[in-house]
Amino acid sequence: MLQFELLATDSSSHARRGTLTLNHGQVQTPIFMPVGTYGTVKGVMPRSLEEMGAQIILGNTFHLWMRPGLDVMGGFGGLHGFEQWHKPILTDSGGFQVWSLGDMRKITEEGVHFASPVNGDKLFMSPEVSMQIQTVLNSDIVMQLDECTPYETKGHITTEDEARRSMEMSIRWARRSKAEFERLGNPNALFGIVQGGMFEHLREESLQQLLELDFPGYAVGGVSVGEPKDEMRRIMAHTPHRLPRHKPRYLMGVGTPEDLVEGVACGVDMFDCVMPTRNARNGTVFTRYGDLKLRNARHKSDHQPLDATCTCHACAGTSGVAWADGGRGGFSRAYLHHLDRCGEMLGPMLTTIHNLHYYLNLMREIRAALDAGRFGEFRQRFASDRARGV
Amino acid sequence: MLQFELLATDSSSHARRGTLTLNHGQVQTPIFMPVGTYGTVKGVMPRSLEEMGAQIILGNTFHLWMRPGLDVMGGFGGLHGFEQWHKPILTDSGGFQVWSLGDMRKITEEGVHFASPVNGDKLFMSPEVSMQIQTVLNSDIVMQLDECTPYETKGHITTEDEARRSMEMSIRWARRSKAEFERLGNPNALFGIVQGGMFEHLREESLQQLLELDFPGYAVGGVSVGEPKDEMRRIMAHTPHRLPRHKPRYLMGVGTPEDLVEGVACGVDMFDCVMPTRNARNGTVFTRYGDLKLRNARHKSDHQPLDATCTCHACAGTSGVAWADGGRGGFSRAYLHHLDRCGEMLGPMLTTIHNLHYYLNLMREIRAALDAGRFGEFRQRFASDRARGV
Ligand SMILES: [Zn+2]
Ligand SMILES: [Zn+2]
Repeated sequence: MLQFELLATDSSSHARRGTLTLNHGQVQTPIFMPVGTYGTVKGVMPRSLEEMGAQIILGNTFHLWMRPGLDVMGGFGGLHGFEQWHKPILTDSGGFQVWSLGDMRKITEEGVHFASPVNGDKLFMSPEVSMQIQTVLNSDIVMQLDECTPYETKGHITTEDEARRSMEMSIRWARRSKAEFERLGNPNALFGIVQGGMFEHLREESLQQLLELDFPGYAVGGVSVGEPKDEMRRIMAHTPHRLPRHKPRYLMGVGTPEDLVEGVACGVDMFDCVMPTRNARNGTVFTRYGDLKLRNARHKSDHQPLDATCTCHACAGTSGVAWADGGRGGFSRAYLHHLDRCGEMLGPMLTTIHNLHYYLNLMREIRAALDAGRFGEFRQRFASDRARGV
Repeated sequence: MLQFELLATDSSSHARRGTLTLNHGQVQTPIFMPVGTYGTVKGVMPRSLEEMGAQIILGNTFHLWMRPGLDVMGGFGGLHGFEQWHKPILTDSGGFQVWSLGDMRKITEEGVHFASPVNGDKLFMSPEVSMQIQTVLNSDIVMQLDECTPYETKGHITTEDEARRSMEMSIRWARRSKAEFERLGNPNALFGIVQGGMFEHLREESLQQLLELDFPGYAVGGVSVGEPKDEMRRIMAHTPHRLPRHKPRYLMGVGTPEDLVEGVACGVDMFDCVMPTRNARNGTVFTRYGDLKLRNARHKSDHQPLDATCTCHACAGTSGVAWADGGRGGFSRAYLHHLDRCGEMLGPMLTTIHNLHYYLNLMREIRAALDAGRFGEFRQRFASDRARGV
């Protein structure tokens, strides 16, 4: 089941404010979805995700199929019970991971033959198999199997003809995904994925054909696949606002805080990206006033928290009062710099909490601005704040 | 400052129940102290330590001297502010780490010359230097610098003569430690350390000489240094109960849950050991009914928590209700097995919480048994429970 209610729209852009109701609860949009590849958002406890206001998280169909496997997942009645996360979950189709196997896989019209990266077993992924796995996972949002059209392959930039053939196969796979999803009686919601590479008219064609299949929600795929930033922004400006107004729109794999704010302005409701979690582990931290490299020696004796305006556990401790509001419960940059230098786990644990909190809070501020009819103002302040420097 | 109040003693053993008052708060004894080498108990947030009832934690003088260094620690007014732990802290002297440098250090009467393992700088550790560092760290309990008498060196078992000379130097270092501690006006409490290797009469001599220096608390060092278990148990049975009755007794670096229960019976009040944290990271978990190897394939589909009687966050989730009492909020063995297999950080995060909670809860049960005058009964039930198998 899926219900999407449009609460407000912005007059100066395509931005929208909505509520998405799924089998495991409600999601306020626009929203960022933390990525939990192997049934865990790396380095974060579910309770911390709840505390920072995460409403929906991702799971990776391919990885969970490999480990722990469907027998185990089935025994738990799906991913929610297994990972102890009781709010909505979206699973990808597994297509991106299969595609990433490179020479280890062979793509045909029927599906993808590949060798398991875990034990070498010969396996087969198809729209039907993807639906079967996602039905066992019992995710609230199921993604169709698509072929992720690459931006380039070994230096060769994908041609229009290649992008068209790939996009057309994804449409046929969308149809097969839908048929199998229905045959299985999956009670959740299946999203179609617009492809078409960097070609607007192919995107338009893909979109039109997917509309005929009447999915409850639509995603824009095949971005964040190695293309230059301006190419991504071009597709982001083209496709989302052309998707049905009364259905949720999901831009896959995007992006920086700036990408999210601009994505919302382009009419996107849902985002996911590994950047906040991956960068946290590498000591790159997002703050209201720009990005911060924790490994820089200038942080060695700095008593300030990562972000004086942040109320996350890393910045504000158990009190939850930001440093800027007089709280002094958080961990200092000096301490986090030290943990990183010593390779201590607590370092990425705290920076991951902060970065995810930053992303979730950014979306919270965007929603508040949309509710107040001040999104244009917010966009300007966001840009000038981020340019200030930390 | 240090006050130690003896609340109860056991009639069937040397076990005692007490309250230790330090500058940063009270500690109920007998107690286990989690080890926080680099200013962090590996993989655990301070708030989790508080939730599981940790009352005092350890810091490593040597490691903190190397990184982040005394300038940074001094800027924070000591270790408490730096690591955001506001209850008591005990720091070791740094002697054990210097001693562990092997060929990279040279021990003389004056102190130990060594090369920094971090940057190769030539450094010098002495009783005076150790007191100066621990004064900057502002730990509630400061340990004298001692020479940790090895059990064996490259296959050569330490002779009585070697153990005597080493023990006698530690006594002279105890005197120098005390003089420097007082000269610095350190407001905390300094412990003397009994040495003497595996020779009871040397332990007795060490103890008698330390008594003259009238320390507010005493430790038994030079155990858990590679000796066979029965040698450790022999020293544990000999020395602790001979220490002053109205002062706290600390057995350094020990041990398994069984060692702790027997240590309490021998009159020990305080323990520390890396075993719960280190074993957690290797997938070995302590439970009421024996130890559990998480990597064993038999846990692959097991829906039970690690320990059905445990109320830690890993076993009982946010509700804190044990599985045995009907709670179902915890994480399953299957999930933890999966996290370990995938190398996910959340695995050691949860097993560390569980293992530390197990140790702290074991001490809580010991204290309750002592309060109730049923320690002998407890010892028997503990042994039969642990032998039951998990
Ligand atoms: Zn923060
Ligand atoms: Zn537990």
